[in-house]
Amino acid sequence: MSLVVMKFGGSSVGSAERIKKVAERIIEKKQEGHQCVVVVSAMGDTTDELVDLCNQLTDHPPAREMDMLLSTGEQISMSLLSMTIQNLGYPAISLTGWQSGMTTDCNHGNAKIVKIEPKRIQDALEKDNIVIVAGFQGLSEDGEISTLGRGGSDTTAVALAASIKADLCEIYTDVDGVYSTDPRIVRVAQKLDEISYDEMLELAQLGAAVLHPRAVEYAKNYNVPLVVRSSFSHNEGTLVKEGNAVEKSMVVRGIAYDKNVARISVLEVEDIPGILATVFGALADAEIDVDIIVQSGVRNGAADFSFSIANTDVEKAMVVMEDLRSTVTFKEVTSETDLVKVSIVGAGMVSNPGVAAKMFRVISQQGVSIKLVSTSEIKTSCVIDRDKLTEVILALHTAYGLDTTQKAFVGGPKERR
Amino acid sequence: MSLVVMKFGGSSVGSAERIKKVAERIIEKKQEGHQCVVVVSAMGDTTDELVDLCNQLTDHPPAREMDMLLSTGEQISMSLLSMTIQNLGYPAISLTGWQSGMTTDCNHGNAKIVKIEPKRIQDALEKDNIVIVAGFQGLSEDGEISTLGRGGSDTTAVALAASIKADLCEIYTDVDGVYSTDPRIVRVAQKLDEISYDEMLELAQLGAAVLHPRAVEYAKNYNVPLVVRSSFSHNEGTLVKEGNAVEKSMVVRGIAYDKNVARISVLEVEDIPGILATVFGALADAEIDVDIIVQSGVRNGAADFSFSIANTDVEKAMVVMEDLRSTVTFKEVTSETDLVKVSIVGAGMVSNPGVAAKMFRVISQQGVSIKLVSTSEIKTSCVIDRDKLTEVILALHTAYGLDTTQKAFVGGPKERR
Repeated sequence: MSLVVMKFGGSSVGSAERIKKVAERIIEKKQEGHQCVVVVSAMGDTTDELVDLCNQLTDHPPAREMDMLLSTGEQISMSLLSMTIQNLGYPAISLTGWQSGMTTDCNHGNAKIVKIEPKRIQDALEKDNIVIVAGFQGLSEDGEISTLGRGGSDTTAVALAASIKADLCEIYTDVDGVYSTDPRIVRVAQKLDEISYDEMLELAQLGAAVLHPRAVEYAKNYNVPLVVRSSFSHNEGTLVKEGNAVEKSMVVRGIAYDKNVARISVLEVEDIPGILATVFGALADAEIDVDIIVQSGVRNGAADFSFSIANTDVEKAMVVMEDLRSTVTFKEVTSETDLVKVSIVGAGMVSNPGVAAKMFRVISQQGVSIKLVSTSEIKTSCVIDRDKLTEVILALHTAYGLDTTQKAFVGGPKERR
Repeated sequence: MSLVVMKFGGSSVGSAERIKKVAERIIEKKQEGHQCVVVVSAMGDTTDELVDLCNQLTDHPPAREMDMLLSTGEQISMSLLSMTIQNLGYPAISLTGWQSGMTTDCNHGNAKIVKIEPKRIQDALEKDNIVIVAGFQGLSEDGEISTLGRGGSDTTAVALAASIKADLCEIYTDVDGVYSTDPRIVRVAQKLDEISYDEMLELAQLGAAVLHPRAVEYAKNYNVPLVVRSSFSHNEGTLVKEGNAVEKSMVVRGIAYDKNVARISVLEVEDIPGILATVFGALADAEIDVDIIVQSGVRNGAADFSFSIANTDVEKAMVVMEDLRSTVTFKEVTSETDLVKVSIVGAGMVSNPGVAAKMFRVISQQGVSIKLVSTSEIKTSCVIDRDKLTEVILALHTAYGLDTTQKAFVGGPKERR
């Protein structure tokens, strides 16, 4: 017998019919002899409907009341799921964030988990219950209902799994697992059997939307084994765990992309050292996330630098840059929108210096120019024109040997229906 | 400055537009210099939608999970109302049942309030907040979310008013106040300016659905002055308070009716004293509410008795009676369905013995036969055929002088828009 945390997202519980399927899925797990703690998100459309009501009433909803409003979503889905399981003959109990002992800080809308005291969960498990916990929410240190923000339910599941020392945390979603790249672009994209936390973290942050990076970080810190799998099939999914030697010898594991990218270039800047702090400080104050920053060498006391931001932030960023003209000296600011960032990810990269060079070569062979480059120990990213995305990913997928099933490292998808 | 509890029902907060109106109404009260605690029900359709979802999943929802599900309704309406008030520039805070210090027993779906510790409400009032409290819900002594059942939000409002020693509890609804009878039947029905708790209790229990009897009882026990008034107009409404001498001299204050009535008669019963306990015990076990019970004199050791129940319970009751044939001896059971109960209510009746006789005379003058009669200190009820309801109520309304504005006792409606 093992203790398993199972997390079901909004689309998995999006209708009465789907809630029934999820209930059956959980009961199967129970019948296999496991203790089950289930974390649920709000039903598919609930959050949107609540936000829509809110928007009819105010443009600036206070964060505390927004949490009060949105936290009802999970309370609805979890109680319906608990009823359904009980109706099928198995004892179950649903618990809100505050009932689960999930304490957060007071940062409404984006609260961080401070501690978990899962006494009620453990008591209910001892009485042989399937315990259903509201994802995404907690009780702040002030006694207020709080929500965890983006990736909240994934984070709830992983944090709970760490807290109750679960043997496994299963993230059920609408895809089969983590793929070598987006299967909508590369038909032969391979599902990975295993991936390390670090690799998953890079893939997650780069827009492979199966698992929120916050949850992956949490899992890495507490060494919680995670499985990403489909709620709609019995395919085995992808196991996310601490990397090992075998995995590290695999050079490139996956290719991710982000379509919402723009580049801003600042030309002929004087006094570069001081100016970078001023410019990126001003952008941060305007809540603009800067991703890649590239600075060229200094010529004649002046230099150029470029950075990438979300496409949707370009107008705001250009206003910030114009406002800076009074404090800093530069000749010109240019922007280029509708770009994409393509990234190759793999823990083996760190010991294989030719990997990045191969990426640049493959991209240039497609006649595509690289606008910005960024590298980390396990990732290399290139910003390119959006209309070249598909051909570049296809070429990279082939070049790194991802088209064929990587038996030695990731194996093929095993089915057991 | 006074402290006022304002309760708004589901239809008053049934849409974003109506929530705005309610917010403005509350702010008016605040601007008059009052401290305001607001109790809200779920938005009009929310509860039905949640129950519908539940019905798709199970025929027998566990009561604990049903409370978990339904309590989200008020949490949604109260947070939206709080946002709207804040958007209009006034500080506000919404509190769930468990945050309000509303402790109940563990009877899910029909919990009773055990105690109220309104510390958070009082703290929030001291900080000049408009405090919005979820009606209908509390925290059970086991730490579970509970709901109060029918009339729950009215009861929350009255109980809170008693607990925080409010000067007034205003129940906002979709009618102008309490009327001398149903204005849909009697065009000249008069709105009452004042009515005693006891009279209101009889009217409420008899189907004048503006205020739940449970809340009236609570108000009577704790002497909380209640006002029933419209959320859609500024008419003054009806004040419900302890009866006084002037009111008692008024013989009949109102006429109520209940359309869901049937009569069951048991003929030639032997050994009457023992049998009544057996019969009504068996009916209670089958959860059939019996209203009026009438027993005629005994002839030759056998007698007849009749009782009234809800029309919808007749089939169930007839089965119970047939099952009793093995234990008790009677000749025959007959039933008569589609009846109505008409009641005259007034605190002055107790000292005016002719009042009931007048009722019987008026009814017989309409050529209507009386099936059952029941009297209390402040009420006389007659069960008659349903198709005679309108003419009987019109005749009674005229006979007791209710058609004209009763200036001496109740006054006419005063408008201040």
